[in-house]
Amino acid sequence: MPAHSNPSSQTSQKPFSGIIPPMVTPLLDDHTLDKPGLSRLIEHLIRGGVHGIFALGTTGEAPSLSYALRKELVQLTCEQAAGRVPVMVGITDSSPEESVLLAQFAAQVGAAAVVAAPPYYFGMDQSELVTYYQYLADHSPLPLYLYNMPSHTKISIALTTVQRLSKHPNIIGLKDSSGNAVYFNAVLHAMKDAPSFSLLVGPEEMMASSVLMGGDGGVNGGANMFPTLYVDLYTAAANRDHEKVLELQTKVMEISHRIYCAGKTGGGYLQGLKTALAFLGICSGHVASPLGNFSEEEKERIKEHLDYLA
Amino acid sequence: MPAHSNPSSQTSQKPFSGIIPPMVTPLLDDHTLDKPGLSRLIEHLIRGGVHGIFALGTTGEAPSLSYALRKELVQLTCEQAAGRVPVMVGITDSSPEESVLLAQFAAQVGAAAVVAAPPYYFGMDQSELVTYYQYLADHSPLPLYLYNMPSHTKISIALTTVQRLSKHPNIIGLKDSSGNAVYFNAVLHAMKDAPSFSLLVGPEEMMASSVLMGGDGGVNGGANMFPTLYVDLYTAAANRDHEKVLELQTKVMEISHRIYCAGKTGGGYLQGLKTALAFLGICSGHVASPLGNFSEEEKERIKEHLDYLA
Amino acid sequence: MPAHSNPSSQTSQKPFSGIIPPMVTPLLDDHTLDKPGLSRLIEHLIRGGVHGIFALGTTGEAPSLSYALRKELVQLTCEQAAGRVPVMVGITDSSPEESVLLAQFAAQVGAAAVVAAPPYYFGMDQSELVTYYQYLADHSPLPLYLYNMPSHTKISIALTTVQRLSKHPNIIGLKDSSGNAVYFNAVLHAMKDAPSFSLLVGPEEMMASSVLMGGDGGVNGGANMFPTLYVDLYTAAANRDHEKVLELQTKVMEISHRIYCAGKTGGGYLQGLKTALAFLGICSGHVASPLGNFSEEEKERIKEHLDYLA
Amino acid sequence: MPAHSNPSSQTSQKPFSGIIPPMVTPLLDDHTLDKPGLSRLIEHLIRGGVHGIFALGTTGEAPSLSYALRKELVQLTCEQAAGRVPVMVGITDSSPEESVLLAQFAAQVGAAAVVAAPPYYFGMDQSELVTYYQYLADHSPLPLYLYNMPSHTKISIALTTVQRLSKHPNIIGLKDSSGNAVYFNAVLHAMKDAPSFSLLVGPEEMMASSVLMGGDGGVNGGANMFPTLYVDLYTAAANRDHEKVLELQTKVMEISHRIYCAGKTGGGYLQGLKTALAFLGICSGHVASPLGNFSEEEKERIKEHLDYLA
Repeated sequence: MPAHSNPSSQTSQKPFSGIIPPMVTPLLDDHTLDKPGLSRLIEHLIRGGVHGIFALGTTGEAPSLSYALRKELVQLTCEQAAGRVPVMVGITDSSPEESVLLAQFAAQVGAAAVVAAPPYYFGMDQSELVTYYQYLADHSPLPLYLYNMPSHTKISIALTTVQRLSKHPNIIGLKDSSGNAVYFNAVLHAMKDAPSFSLLVGPEEMMASSVLMGGDGGVNGGANMFPTLYVDLYTAAANRDHEKVLELQTKVMEISHRIYCAGKTGGGYLQGLKTALAFLGICSGHVASPLGNFSEEEKERIKEHLDYLA
Repeated sequence: MPAHSNPSSQTSQKPFSGIIPPMVTPLLDDHTLDKPGLSRLIEHLIRGGVHGIFALGTTGEAPSLSYALRKELVQLTCEQAAGRVPVMVGITDSSPEESVLLAQFAAQVGAAAVVAAPPYYFGMDQSELVTYYQYLADHSPLPLYLYNMPSHTKISIALTTVQRLSKHPNIIGLKDSSGNAVYFNAVLHAMKDAPSFSLLVGPEEMMASSVLMGGDGGVNGGANMFPTLYVDLYTAAANRDHEKVLELQTKVMEISHRIYCAGKTGGGYLQGLKTALAFLGICSGHVASPLGNFSEEEKERIKEHLDYLA
Repeated sequence: MPAHSNPSSQTSQKPFSGIIPPMVTPLLDDHTLDKPGLSRLIEHLIRGGVHGIFALGTTGEAPSLSYALRKELVQLTCEQAAGRVPVMVGITDSSPEESVLLAQFAAQVGAAAVVAAPPYYFGMDQSELVTYYQYLADHSPLPLYLYNMPSHTKISIALTTVQRLSKHPNIIGLKDSSGNAVYFNAVLHAMKDAPSFSLLVGPEEMMASSVLMGGDGGVNGGANMFPTLYVDLYTAAANRDHEKVLELQTKVMEISHRIYCAGKTGGGYLQGLKTALAFLGICSGHVASPLGNFSEEEKERIKEHLDYLA
Repeated sequence: MPAHSNPSSQTSQKPFSGIIPPMVTPLLDDHTLDKPGLSRLIEHLIRGGVHGIFALGTTGEAPSLSYALRKELVQLTCEQAAGRVPVMVGITDSSPEESVLLAQFAAQVGAAAVVAAPPYYFGMDQSELVTYYQYLADHSPLPLYLYNMPSHTKISIALTTVQRLSKHPNIIGLKDSSGNAVYFNAVLHAMKDAPSFSLLVGPEEMMASSVLMGGDGGVNGGANMFPTLYVDLYTAAANRDHEKVLELQTKVMEISHRIYCAGKTGGGYLQGLKTALAFLGICSGHVASPLGNFSEEEKERIKEHLDYLA
């Protein structure tokens, strides 16, 4: 029975499925990891029942960090996770060679897979994208996840590109952060007969609906704060427990509304998330340059929202 | 019990819910309606169980048509529907006054509501958008639906704008064609306590998932061809019949894949749809300028796909 | 001697060259022309030495106006101009048939040419654009100008499209409002051997430099306020009077900086221009919906800037 | 006398002015410099009279290269230039810390200045951009050039941001590659009273016109092939020798038309440029991943075009 046509009798059995939080990178300042915070965060996630950890994604601010810091983070994360959950490592870079070097490092320290969004400086076409991902997959010692993130990379991984790349033995799934449900449903449909290829969504607001339609889980930022909530929502959706889905979805939407839109101009996902993690006592809330940090007033609003959500 | 928090025990009871096809405009050429085709199409839709008809939307090519032809179409549609299903009329225009004139005409000939996307020439901000919609709502004799269509209008109707406008007594719902599930779920959540405000999605690929999460239905182009399929999918989603949803969703995705992506460059939604309607013997397949028509080769491909789908 | 390779010994002798202001539409409210203001404005322009008048462009807010009002404006403009300068009429519309109807009307009341930007609702490709313009050119009784306005129409008229269309006997020039000097210089170079095809730029900030490189003039909004300044700058550039160019360019840039960027968010071209025209006693300053009008505070700033510029 | 109001009696005397080619990075493959080719290229440029060399720009494919290779290139370039012309080094990166590390390295090996486009992964606002550039300028041992490149970085450096940053003692100029002449003229006007702040344009198609209006020169890719042509065009524009400007501009436009648009889809700037350099015997033509290389057929076309241009 193909996984996508009947995803609901139980949670997915694929290697990467369920809730795999895009872990924030706890920072004391732009150049220094908050190591105790990182340990606490990883324990908090594992205790919360997550199915994996994704380090160095967009939420992990990877592109803003120096390579030395990125490596330090990957090593410490793998050490702390200690095999209890698989660690996926973002290797997105504008330089393919730097991506491969990071993939090699990740393999050495025990990561389970790597994740790459398209190179994000030059405009590319889909055939260049295919060549690029094949190069990465050929040279990465770890299995590779595709990462669709058009708002940041200026290119969407076309459905036909996903189909072609899914045939590479070292490419095992797609994380889609486009927010585009037409695209995601088209990928779901096209990959029906490739049940071992896993399909995750980034935005938590659409995680439940995507799992109801056959998706394999979510890489949801909010799971940094409240891992159990997202694991429960995933499980409810995978088990087609509709009442539960709608009840928990309401909570997820409140988080989205209150924590990610608290900035002056209605945005501030990363700032809101890290500020909340600081108030929750999990780790330092510093956001690395070039992104700015919240003002005291904005932080105060997050605090009020956390009280409301509690 | 608020409608959005428990949408599934039965189909929505709102004035506009269910499947309301964005009816194509059957044309003999750019300037001439295919009147017998229009009659056949409307009978086909009503026989198929649709809950309403939306004339002069994007799928209806309204912006390409002369005003004289738009009026003729509205009149004939209302006459043929003859009160069996409500008729919604698109009044989207860059000129607010022309929109109001068309709304007045629609009221005279018996339409039930009007639908307007933002004016699509000048760039606007959200406060100008609020003023614009309030003007339309104040001057339209028929209730007004908001229509979010950022790919064509260059602006998205912000969540806060929807919230403000939903308080106007003559604004009764939103049709969202952004394809953005984060946006749609945010609107669903925000409008939870306004159960009479109806929320429809345009793209059929996400209709089922949006109804599962509390949406009120779809304005889906494919329902021009196969109205029963879309009505059944809507009903299955509204009744939480999951097996049925996944079974019918597969059919909808095959249509999307085979009919809407048959153009040379992987697109061609409108051309594919109208070509298929011609092959199905429902109405003429001509697409109005400025959009081009399919080549004979592309038409042949549609025919093969229809045979496959049959 | 080809016009573009030596444009500077004298001003261009093409049918449409020099300064052709995109005339604002003086309005008492959204639905009513300010007729005395219109007369004063046209006299002000002709007295200022302009080489033509372009009615119903973007600056003329054409897409926001009803068809009845557009026709009234065209008729009154032609009557007032009375053959002293040629009148060009914007016929941009999402419906080709409405464009042709307006072109026919413009011919009847004595206009000299029509101008059309691409249809601005549906996304098109270049081949659809070619077909579209050929249709307009075939059916317009007046010669047709192409109008490149990608920020508003979502499509740029590609160089190869301009080249193909320039061979149509009824297409006589291009007005480029992209602001893109790479594009404009490429068109200039490509059209070198078509000396009767005229090339005008919209943005006044680049009018002088484009004329220095071989362009034929400008359709500059600021000429509504200060026609002589723009005519003098054009003449200086056409005559390669460099000292004069730099002296007058400074004035034009001050206008651009002070009048067009006085809005809350640093924009407000149309609002600034119309507010200034009202303060100068030329015509009413009302901006039609959907665009908003300046606040009293913003108007006050325009007044101060006008005092500074005087 | 302010430099910008009278730029033309002689070429600019600013530290960075004239023609500073964005040097291609000669590569044997994605990971290996073509060292003899690099030496030949630098000698070719210096012999051609260029006023400086800009290494690791967009044309230098910096974002595609590993850090090790970038450093090797900078060192070899400085050694070969040996103080005969100043070397500017691109330090654009999504990680501020990596940018500073490269700036430090560039200083050690003798570069004269560094150049940075905005970080290109996260979306930023202008206030974050100001903070970012102030950080770079504070920490760079070399003076810093701003680099406006919105097509690749998704953000334009606003005029007000340029004005604020120009007051930092270590920020000495702006390279604008937007192609937007309205923007460039606005910057020229605004920076009139900051005569030591230098303003260069990227696109060679608008270099002459920008210098005629007061700009300080160009960072033009074509100067890799034909340095003397671009130096002569700059000099003619700076000296207001109009006949010469139009004569040489024609040649530059032919290069742009024939070499940069030879790809299948009308693009291929970098591929065309590097292919031409290979045919000219200057250096290897390999383009680094993720961008693709020209097909044999496309290369052949470049060869024909070079023959035509010769």
